Amino acid sequence: MNKKTHIGVVGSGECSPEIYDQASALGHLIAKNDWVLFCGGLGGVMEGVAKGCYQSGGITVGILPGKEKDSANPFITLPIATGLGEGRNLLVVRASDVVVAIGGSYGTLSEIGFALKIGKPVIGLKTWPGIDGIDYVETPDQGINMVAKYLSRLK
Amino acid sequence: MNKKTHIGVVGSGECSPEIYDQASALGHLIAKNDWVLFCGGLGGVMEGVAKGCYQSGGITVGILPGKEKDSANPFITLPIATGLGEGRNLLVVRASDVVVAIGGSYGTLSEIGFALKIGKPVIGLKTWPGIDGIDYVETPDQGINMVAKYLSRLK
Amino acid sequence: MNKKTHIGVVGSGECSPEIYDQASALGHLIAKNDWVLFCGGLGGVMEGVAKGCYQSGGITVGILPGKEKDSANPFITLPIATGLGEGRNLLVVRASDVVVAIGGSYGTLSEIGFALKIGKPVIGLKTWPGIDGIDYVETPDQGINMVAKYLSRLK
Amino acid sequence: MNKKTHIGVVGSGECSPEIYDQASALGHLIAKNDWVLFCGGLGGVMEGVAKGCYQSGGITVGILPGKEKDSANPFITLPIATGLGEGRNLLVVRASDVVVAIGGSYGTLSEIGFALKIGKPVIGLKTWPGIDGIDYVETPDQGINMVAKYLSRLK
Repeated sequence: MNKKTHIGVVGSGECSPEIYDQASALGHLIAKNDWVLFCGGLGGVMEGVAKGCYQSGGITVGILPGKEKDSANPFITLPIATGLGEGRNLLVVRASDVVVAIGGSYGTLSEIGFALKIGKPVIGLKTWPGIDGIDYVETPDQGINMVAKYLSRLK
Repeated sequence: MNKKTHIGVVGSGECSPEIYDQASALGHLIAKNDWVLFCGGLGGVMEGVAKGCYQSGGITVGILPGKEKDSANPFITLPIATGLGEGRNLLVVRASDVVVAIGGSYGTLSEIGFALKIGKPVIGLKTWPGIDGIDYVETPDQGINMVAKYLSRLK
Repeated sequence: MNKKTHIGVVGSGECSPEIYDQASALGHLIAKNDWVLFCGGLGGVMEGVAKGCYQSGGITVGILPGKEKDSANPFITLPIATGLGEGRNLLVVRASDVVVAIGGSYGTLSEIGFALKIGKPVIGLKTWPGIDGIDYVETPDQGINMVAKYLSRLK
Repeated sequence: MNKKTHIGVVGSGECSPEIYDQASALGHLIAKNDWVLFCGGLGGVMEGVAKGCYQSGGITVGILPGKEKDSANPFITLPIATGLGEGRNLLVVRASDVVVAIGGSYGTLSEIGFALKIGKPVIGLKTWPGIDGIDYVETPDQGINMVAKYLSRLK
């Protein structure tokens, strides 16, 4: 069978309404492209993107820090409890074909560094500025176009 | 939304045709019950159970030891590359509500020990004998009945 | 420089006084051989073996499940906090040249399975019986002799 | 017993001679303060800092990505093989009381993000600029003074 494309979206567990809405818009577009969303499964950006993807019929995977799958936000269709704490951040990145970073927490910085380290394309939307290797975009639409550009190269 | 039930099936990467067929039969029943299969995503028991589940329309998650999702067997619908090597075994167990062990490799023994350690129900089919805490069954049908019994208790 | 030999001792966090004393005797002999002890850093067997090793001047490494190095028992000279929960069990095994299993908890079973899976020699003292691949001994002295036998082969 | 202080030094596996020398100078000062060095155990900054610490009589712990302790550089007194690949980066940070970042690779960025995320003090020497939360210094001596300042607060 053909494996689907995995899009990892990383961002902090608390965010502004504007960032939340942009994450949701991105999630909607991920679903429309029939890609699978990977995220950390909790609140903030993770909830925003999962909500947008889920409400458009997409598959939403949440790689959770805790031991219980019930800790996932309500828009996660496949919650994966790891019990690894923050160590689970690496799994979101590793499992994804392309990573989109939204917003600017320290956890997101860690995931950006790890993604670039292991050679994953990283697209940045309102995230840590000035990091060589990130393709910065201004809107969810631009982000999806950039994802598509990378995917066409990966094939 | 209602989270689906996760059934982890652990077993070695090489197995006899008989064990492979029993794993497939178990996978078929997992799909019929609308449960999600979690396994290690490679060959042997992992392939048998994924094949049975996939061919009956089920969701098959493969938690892979390597860094590439393409290393999954052809019946995995959601391959998750971890790059953690054998460390990924714990993730299969942690993500599952009930664990079924099939056959008798050392990796399976490790997963049985870990599952019992963290309090997951473990059902054994032709696996390591005499371990207090395993519910032993003789057939895939009996295994599924035992899974259902545990699930009714967990609710 | 010459790297020292690492002896991993796995056993449960609660144990009988008899098992504790045997673990201590083993730890004493580990120090006398100028080997480094690796263990899980908590109570029971882990404390017994660390106490014996520490009191005889040995180096005692504790690979801890939690996030704080202060959670180690008082006989650990090098506490390593991992934040990985039970996932840290694999690290004790991976870091060791030879593994000694004492007593019979599920965590120990998991570590035995993992050690045999990745090809580490496993010596068993009053632990899970009947596992093909374990070299069973009756006393700490016999355990140390068996460790030495394996080390001479590894060189 | 009193646990020693753990200083984590993170930096890339390849570096300029100037950075290597600064790492060595830092390692020397770590040993002089009777602190334990934690690093990734390989080349570049990791080797420089381990060399300086080792040659001044310090304890040097190398948390290795691979499965063999022999992969450590020659100045590591306690090599810990993890088999976790880049996932081991988190362990260096978690095990340390204070983290010093030297130089500017993506792996280092990941470790900086993770350290700040989990609340570890981070001191930066010729590393990623402009990250809020890092205490930047210009020389190894200044770095050690900053470490000492943090340690006095942690007590």
